[in-house]
Amino acid sequence: MPLKSFEELYATADKLSSPVPVAAAGGADSTVIQALELARRRGWVKPILTGDLQAIRERADSLDVDISQFQLIEEEPDSARIAVKEVKEGRAQLLMKGQISTPYLMQAILDKEHGLRSGKTIGQIVLMEIAKDQRSFLMTDTGVTIDPSVKQKTELVESVVEVAQKLSCPNPRIALMSATEKVTAALPDTQVADEIVQLANQGEFGECIVQGPLSFDLAYAVDAGVKKGIDGDVTGAADAMIFPNLLAANLTVKGIMYTAACQFGGILCGTSSPVVFMSRADSVETRLNSLAYALHLL
Amino acid sequence: MPLKSFEELYATADKLSSPVPVAAAGGADSTVIQALELARRRGWVKPILTGDLQAIRERADSLDVDISQFQLIEEEPDSARIAVKEVKEGRAQLLMKGQISTPYLMQAILDKEHGLRSGKTIGQIVLMEIAKDQRSFLMTDTGVTIDPSVKQKTELVESVVEVAQKLSCPNPRIALMSATEKVTAALPDTQVADEIVQLANQGEFGECIVQGPLSFDLAYAVDAGVKKGIDGDVTGAADAMIFPNLLAANLTVKGIMYTAACQFGGILCGTSSPVVFMSRADSVETRLNSLAYALHLL
Repeated sequence: MPLKSFEELYATADKLSSPVPVAAAGGADSTVIQALELARRRGWVKPILTGDLQAIRERADSLDVDISQFQLIEEEPDSARIAVKEVKEGRAQLLMKGQISTPYLMQAILDKEHGLRSGKTIGQIVLMEIAKDQRSFLMTDTGVTIDPSVKQKTELVESVVEVAQKLSCPNPRIALMSATEKVTAALPDTQVADEIVQLANQGEFGECIVQGPLSFDLAYAVDAGVKKGIDGDVTGAADAMIFPNLLAANLTVKGIMYTAACQFGGILCGTSSPVVFMSRADSVETRLNSLAYALHLL
Repeated sequence: MPLKSFEELYATADKLSSPVPVAAAGGADSTVIQALELARRRGWVKPILTGDLQAIRERADSLDVDISQFQLIEEEPDSARIAVKEVKEGRAQLLMKGQISTPYLMQAILDKEHGLRSGKTIGQIVLMEIAKDQRSFLMTDTGVTIDPSVKQKTELVESVVEVAQKLSCPNPRIALMSATEKVTAALPDTQVADEIVQLANQGEFGECIVQGPLSFDLAYAVDAGVKKGIDGDVTGAADAMIFPNLLAANLTVKGIMYTAACQFGGILCGTSSPVVFMSRADSVETRLNSLAYALHLL
């Protein structure tokens, strides 16, 4: 079964019996305020904002958004730590990245005592939906771990399987991405892919099918598999793509985001609670997509 | 001035005074035969095919393509070397990759005595045109040099500047791609980008503007630069993207190819004659695009 579409994720969020409290770190951002207000009106969330309160109020005024239903937390020096604390202490169920740098937010998330560590590798998992092919897939790690070790990659596979299953895909097809489908010493990532496939064949990842190394065309397009004579259950049908490193993942996901007619949203995996996690340059729609996606993972 | 569009490249090729002889290595391929026949009818090329002649004839028959105007070279064991020889000895002006593996073709191209070495770094340069934004840009190296050194990257910049200028863009804006716009020791490719920008500032690359590191959004979208507060002549307007390594380049270019409404073509730079160079899984249209693009570089 394919992953849920954003339309389906919105429909499910619309049926929530009570709004979920969400703490946004760095709330003085137009798209954060607008997305949270849209989500609040649909009954999805109860927004909590941290950051420079005067800046937040001015931003909301300039957008003509009434934030009287938002909780604002008294300004303190570190808005990331305050937002994380709201989640850690149970007053919020989701953390949301706002106008704040990734390293700064990650420091708060990774804090041994007050953070949201779960012991597992943290990664960004983007849910990507391509309009022309009516096709959805997950991409990871697009934003956190620069050069994941084999162990870290296996944890990312575990996380992506879990996310796919929560998105109603019980037996996800996982592609280990590379520039080629051949295992070769010239591209060490192909050897790592092969190693992870062996682990999958030993049952390491439960209900899923893992194949790799696969180039993008083979993971995405049935035609390409036929033309190149490459078979396999994941060929042309990947529900999730695990990238060899952050550089390749980040450039690929942004390449698609900016050139294709698509919808997308992003979260962090490996944290004790889901984190709504997208780039500062993203739109209101993407933030709302990311919220619908994260709500589905609770 | 922006790069020429494929429509413009086709119009120019249509005006050629005499067809250009093209030697295709591995001609027993449907899309190779169909693209060369279309190009021949438009007066662009005089096709020369090497490979298994019986297989070529059978393939042409099955496609109902009359290849009586094609030159077929008597079967010998190595179709790549025969095609390269046609170019080396001046009987063809372009080499075209057909149904043949990249390493096998590269061996013939790189042969010290009989190959097409020019002494410069060889790389694939894809010309990408995105329909929705009416935007074209070059991407390199998407297919040959796995992990280019700083010196190899400077040669790729030189080649991409030359190609852009031949595509009517006299002062191209070159983006050095990464996952971030910050120079940081955690991502060594950002430091290499910084080094190349210094060389550009010293006038190393002639008429062009080089900026980096830049993430995909900053190289492509004006909005993203505004939102992230990043300025610069290349921001949102890159005519060419130089990628940190082949893995990132290959995954990004294929990600765009398969998900966006786009047109594209590919050639090799750094060889003594242009090489029409695309994946075995590509379509007739892409092969024709690549021919129009390569003809423009002669």
